[in-house]
Amino acid sequence: MKRRALLLTAVLLLGFADTPVGTMAVLDAARPDEWRPLNPEMTLYMDVAGGTVVIELAPLFAPNSVTNIKRLVRQRYFDGLSINRVQDNYVVQWGDADGEDAAKRRPLGRADATIGPEFEKGTPGLGIAAVPGPDGFADTVGFVNGFHVARKGERAWLTHCYGALGVGRGDAADSGNGSELYVVIGHAPRHLDRNITLAGRVIAGMELLSSLPRGTGPLGFYERPEQRVPISRIRVGSDVPAAERLDIEIMRTDSASFAKFVEARANRARDGWFLKDAGYIDLCNVRVPQRPVATP
Amino acid sequence: MKRRALLLTAVLLLGFADTPVGTMAVLDAARPDEWRPLNPEMTLYMDVAGGTVVIELAPLFAPNSVTNIKRLVRQRYFDGLSINRVQDNYVVQWGDADGEDAAKRRPLGRADATIGPEFEKGTPGLGIAAVPGPDGFADTVGFVNGFHVARKGERAWLTHCYGALGVGRGDAADSGNGSELYVVIGHAPRHLDRNITLAGRVIAGMELLSSLPRGTGPLGFYERPEQRVPISRIRVGSDVPAAERLDIEIMRTDSASFAKFVEARANRARDGWFLKDAGYIDLCNVRVPQRPVATP
Repeated sequence: MKRRALLLTAVLLLGFADTPVGTMAVLDAARPDEWRPLNPEMTLYMDVAGGTVVIELAPLFAPNSVTNIKRLVRQRYFDGLSINRVQDNYVVQWGDADGEDAAKRRPLGRADATIGPEFEKGTPGLGIAAVPGPDGFADTVGFVNGFHVARKGERAWLTHCYGALGVGRGDAADSGNGSELYVVIGHAPRHLDRNITLAGRVIAGMELLSSLPRGTGPLGFYERPEQRVPISRIRVGSDVPAAERLDIEIMRTDSASFAKFVEARANRARDGWFLKDAGYIDLCNVRVPQRPVATP
Repeated sequence: MKRRALLLTAVLLLGFADTPVGTMAVLDAARPDEWRPLNPEMTLYMDVAGGTVVIELAPLFAPNSVTNIKRLVRQRYFDGLSINRVQDNYVVQWGDADGEDAAKRRPLGRADATIGPEFEKGTPGLGIAAVPGPDGFADTVGFVNGFHVARKGERAWLTHCYGALGVGRGDAADSGNGSELYVVIGHAPRHLDRNITLAGRVIAGMELLSSLPRGTGPLGFYERPEQRVPISRIRVGSDVPAAERLDIEIMRTDSASFAKFVEARANRARDGWFLKDAGYIDLCNVRVPQRPVATP
């Protein structure tokens, strides 16, 4: 019997890692006003085989890129294009596979072809909810409006955590325009921070991107056109019928409950299974809590 | 033409991120004795659909677990078992899906049913090649024999970086025996460090694990038996015909060239594309260089 119980827990393995008592208690105790809805005008719905990837945009950090991406989306620029690159432990990238071919590539229409870098911004008024402890890339790390951010001196930036949405660029700092987008699918490549514009984060359907077959060409590009993963369409949330929208709420990262949540994640032994508290959690391991909107 | 060049580079996007001049120069300059072969007696070959996952074992940190895993492998314990859990941004786990069922589960044979924790070890004589800069979980981080390690006071441990191989356990510290194994497929869950035994790292075929469909049950377990991913066999490298073995060499992490490599990865602007040096690289973003053995 003891052996059977042992095997049961052995099969569950890291079983308590994501259903912990201490963390759950914090979430359960959060007040209703410590949760916020999604803003449909700042949300993208990308339909691919198997489901929909939902992305929250970050206009506070990348206002011009977000505007341009939404222009492209509303022109249906992305509809019928594809995911062309999946590099293991790095990024998934989508856009126009014919972008190099002047005769075949899709026109950008009313969207801008270049956008000044939005790699970082000034800190005044930003109100970063800090995650305690050291970070090798920054003076402080934490959250603004649900986004992972870092700060050095008076400059702050979005960080390349798992699920971050980035704006592909060429060698020139202003060469990204939002027609090539990528999402981080591996250990956070934070050396990219401040070198390229981040404009959002995936909040649902991440597994549709992370489980794609890796490309076998250089940089993880698919070698044959038939390997590319079709994007049937991308829509701005406001243009999606209300009944089809993702009905979730997200914990406010400037709330007292979120600070308690971060503290609970740094000290997991109270959650069971864990034997030792780390006493620390790195920025990208903090996943902002979200939950279905309760039906009244 | 300018526009065409722009689009060309835009399609390449993070194009130079993994083929940089500065980093490549360091690798090219490394002396032959700064590379080491794999030890076939400390290497596992796991055959799954699509190919072979190759794992380097870490007997220095987990001697008893490594011995037990090899016993299980040589008894063909894993042959015909399956990958039963794929949790996004966390772990892939394999073992006996019938482990809870006393009537159906595979016997452990000559392998031990429990193993004392090998979560950390003493530092004397360890010789950690340090990666400079702060780390929130440890006093120092760096490498020993190609493995990512951390140190606090006089204790050191293997870290849960991408590709790390772990020994599943239940609630009891000694309940892991190597019959349930997992590999990290997401952002390093370093809060697991010192709570569970790590025993190796994936050195080839990682994409066969990381691109698997995510399980939709609790903790990412597959809900239906037919979703499980069969493991046709696992072999110790010494038992694999020499001609079928992975013929690579790995950069010695105690070499001068490796220290230069780490420094180059912390400062990427010299590599082109990057505009700003981070001046830092976190432990889990350092991937130990490996290359095919040159044919004479």
